[in-house]
Amino acid sequence: MKTVIIGSGNVAFHLSKAFYNAGINIIQIAARNQEEGIQLAKKINSEFVSLENIDTNADLYLLAIKDDAIQSVAKMLYGKIKEDAIIVHTSGSTSIAVLEKYFENVGCLYPLQTFSKQKNIELSAVPFFITANLMLVEKQLVDFVSVISKNVSIINDNQRLSIHIAAVFVCNFTNHMLSIGSEILHHHLLNFEIMKPLINETIEKALQFDPVEMQTGPAVREDKLVMEKHIDFLKMNPNYQKIYQVVSESIIEMKSIS
Amino acid sequence: MKTVIIGSGNVAFHLSKAFYNAGINIIQIAARNQEEGIQLAKKINSEFVSLENIDTNADLYLLAIKDDAIQSVAKMLYGKIKEDAIIVHTSGSTSIAVLEKYFENVGCLYPLQTFSKQKNIELSAVPFFITANLMLVEKQLVDFVSVISKNVSIINDNQRLSIHIAAVFVCNFTNHMLSIGSEILHHHLLNFEIMKPLINETIEKALQFDPVEMQTGPAVREDKLVMEKHIDFLKMNPNYQKIYQVVSESIIEMKSIS
Repeated sequence: MKTVIIGSGNVAFHLSKAFYNAGINIIQIAARNQEEGIQLAKKINSEFVSLENIDTNADLYLLAIKDDAIQSVAKMLYGKIKEDAIIVHTSGSTSIAVLEKYFENVGCLYPLQTFSKQKNIELSAVPFFITANLMLVEKQLVDFVSVISKNVSIINDNQRLSIHIAAVFVCNFTNHMLSIGSEILHHHLLNFEIMKPLINETIEKALQFDPVEMQTGPAVREDKLVMEKHIDFLKMNPNYQKIYQVVSESIIEMKSIS
Repeated sequence: MKTVIIGSGNVAFHLSKAFYNAGINIIQIAARNQEEGIQLAKKINSEFVSLENIDTNADLYLLAIKDDAIQSVAKMLYGKIKEDAIIVHTSGSTSIAVLEKYFENVGCLYPLQTFSKQKNIELSAVPFFITANLMLVEKQLVDFVSVISKNVSIINDNQRLSIHIAAVFVCNFTNHMLSIGSEILHHHLLNFEIMKPLINETIEKALQFDPVEMQTGPAVREDKLVMEKHIDFLKMNPNYQKIYQVVSESIIEMKSIS
């Protein structure tokens, strides 16, 4: 599969490296961000091109770009690339219908992982979720992704959206909870390091048992005195206060339901 | 040190077992909850007594009870126990002044960990924070705790409060983010298991680098289209919508400051 990867962000970066290492023929990296694109192309011995100069003869076009750029890149490629090429995006929250308007063979290849360029990551255990408009495309995408991951599943657009939203909570929002903890400690000249055993135990428990069953803390005990003390303490940051309030309410309601 | 442990909840349970295993002489477990108290006393070959029948001759009274019960138990012991006894609580958010009103030697012994009876835990790496009203008490408490943990520090009331609040975010609220993710997936007949690599990577990154620097997702990208789609999807649960909104706003603001 002669492959063109479009994008130079975190997802494009990690997927390009993994596919390159697995022997996939990445003929071009195309990106709006020239500096990042050139760097990435160099890393995987590929050619960097601007979006306007994409090779129209590739077998697979992988769009690892922002959700709101998918439509415009699709429009740009429309009528130029060969008819039997496969065009996929990597977005959790964008329907493959956006691509189906323009192309015959379309899909999504969604890696359930958080990517930062600073940190290497072993992709073989990362779950990849495939959506495709045709069985034949689905099969080709499964084969394609299987060279980098042993954990490949088929899902539809709606399932992928729900996975993405769940991922925002367990990854992005969890990371923000850690950020707030870290900021509070720094503010009081304490080191975030002290939280390591607590964080590790929290995660271990949630993964070993059910997180809903493992809830501890003032909210689930409905310890209103402590909660009021904490909200008052957080007056330096109204966002933290709001988060404390709505998350505590949600914890109390989840307990009453389960 | 002849020790009486008051309480039968998660903290009392794990501390009792650890001190017992380290050879501390726990002469009594006293608790309001008779069933839990008897069970715990049996586990550590101790005697269960009601709060009214506490031995007044012990050297150390460890109150591992709810914040709002500390004052009333202190009142109850006032004038009965011997004058040079040490009385400590384990609360992150309660000043030791509550005990100082009644006794000469007081303090707090705060373990920075989340405890559930279902899960064993190795206490030796758990950070314990000591606060005491007198240097002599401080020293005795450090010695006492050092038999179960290698990670003992001295802090004051205000530092402990800030650590407790940070812990609510990194532990209790993080666990709720995982709970919401888990509920969303169950609702769509998907297994929480698929989140394991993502969760582990999120935590590993946050601990290895700075979580503030490691933020990913729609909010930090200010991808409003995706955020609106997610909030609309969450209409089944207004609490989830509110959390999505305030956490996203906080992520955007933290980015603009740092």
